Amino acid sequence: MAEKEKMSIVVFSDDLDKALAAFILATSGASMGMDVSMFFTFWGLNILKKNSGGGKSKGIMKKMLNFMNRGGSRRLKLSKFHMFGLGTWMMKKLMKETNLPSIDEFITMAKQMGVKLIPCSTSCGVMGIAEGAFREEVESLAGAAYFLNEARQSKVALFI
Amino acid sequence: MAEKEKMSIVVFSDDLDKALAAFILATSGASMGMDVSMFFTFWGLNILKKNSGGGKSKGIMKKMLNFMNRGGSRRLKLSKFHMFGLGTWMMKKLMKETNLPSIDEFITMAKQMGVKLIPCSTSCGVMGIAEGAFREEVESLAGAAYFLNEARQSKVALFI
Amino acid sequence: MAEKEKMSIVVFSDDLDKALAAFILATSGASMGMDVSMFFTFWGLNILKKNSGGGKSKGIMKKMLNFMNRGGSRRLKLSKFHMFGLGTWMMKKLMKETNLPSIDEFITMAKQMGVKLIPCSTSCGVMGIAEGAFREEVESLAGAAYFLNEARQSKVALFI
Repeated sequence: MAEKEKMSIVVFSDDLDKALAAFILATSGASMGMDVSMFFTFWGLNILKKNSGGGKSKGIMKKMLNFMNRGGSRRLKLSKFHMFGLGTWMMKKLMKETNLPSIDEFITMAKQMGVKLIPCSTSCGVMGIAEGAFREEVESLAGAAYFLNEARQSKVALFI
Repeated sequence: MAEKEKMSIVVFSDDLDKALAAFILATSGASMGMDVSMFFTFWGLNILKKNSGGGKSKGIMKKMLNFMNRGGSRRLKLSKFHMFGLGTWMMKKLMKETNLPSIDEFITMAKQMGVKLIPCSTSCGVMGIAEGAFREEVESLAGAAYFLNEARQSKVALFI
Repeated sequence: MAEKEKMSIVVFSDDLDKALAAFILATSGASMGMDVSMFFTFWGLNILKKNSGGGKSKGIMKKMLNFMNRGGSRRLKLSKFHMFGLGTWMMKKLMKETNLPSIDEFITMAKQMGVKLIPCSTSCGVMGIAEGAFREEVESLAGAAYFLNEARQSKVALFI
């Protein structure tokens, strides 16, 4: 059997619009028969955090950072026109109206389609994010070398 | 005859500076003999909107979104130092001084060089952008699967 | 001897977090035996500017731009939570605590590992940045065609 073509995406941002772009590309790739890995780093890690909280960090600065930078798929904001929540709320409405899945639904879909959701270990270390902070769909943490090894075998590799 | 090498770019942003980077890369690729596709999605769609307006959307929220998010190649702003228009005005002056084409001119040039300018159908649907909103240089709308099929055949694929 | 696999990165942004991501990927690639080129363009050029200043631009607008847009590896800010410097200061503390190199140290490391640090000639022209503005680790200026030629031979090409 021929090996599947690979696709790998770095998800750096936690903007709602960029997260949406990343999941639309990832699930489209999977539905075309590609073997897709999403590698979440820096702010992108927020997308994978549990909406209910959980996962305590150690140290006052890390605690502060994770208090401000709370994350969770339902707390993402638009990169433009957030307008104290109004623009983001409108975009979510429009997504629903056009039957586009929410980020929450995209995470479930992606997982079911075999997309690998991988948190970046270096970012977790620097930002003091405990593994318990992530939802159950995620794979084990991995570093940049892991991503690059996937990317160099990939037909498509993007940084979002 | 050997087939041309392909290049494909997702243009997600409508910042003047990022649009400039995208068009410089696309036209450079075309002048090196590559077959270039630019796939405009989300805010990037603004770059392709007519400067004169046109294309009404249906529904109050889509109308509001397209009123705020008016677009047009001459309305793009710098991602930094926009400064109520001053920074953007200065950048445009500097572009002219160094004989760099404006985005308007880049669109014409790109089209003439055979670069394909493709609006993302999913984004148009969610944001309620009518096809009539776009200038005449654009191709038909296409979805993420179309882009990925181009990208996996491409020597260079970027997300800007 | 087999030729080395190539990797090429456009560094468009001068956000501390994105610069960090770029250098982590570049140095990881180099340590995996890849031949890595980083192509700095627009705001990304700030990363390569001397921290001590130097390199005068001609013309009032270019002077103004380079006064505001001073640059230098130690002046980079977070893309989120900069908070008048507090967030950025915290991030630098956290980087130190977890033994992650500073951007300054990453530039030295990258150079020692053979990573090529290339300023984009077109951006330098438009923004009026003199070659003397850059630190000694940089290569000669090069244009988009140079980058694309690297990118089309690369196993991994990213726009950050």
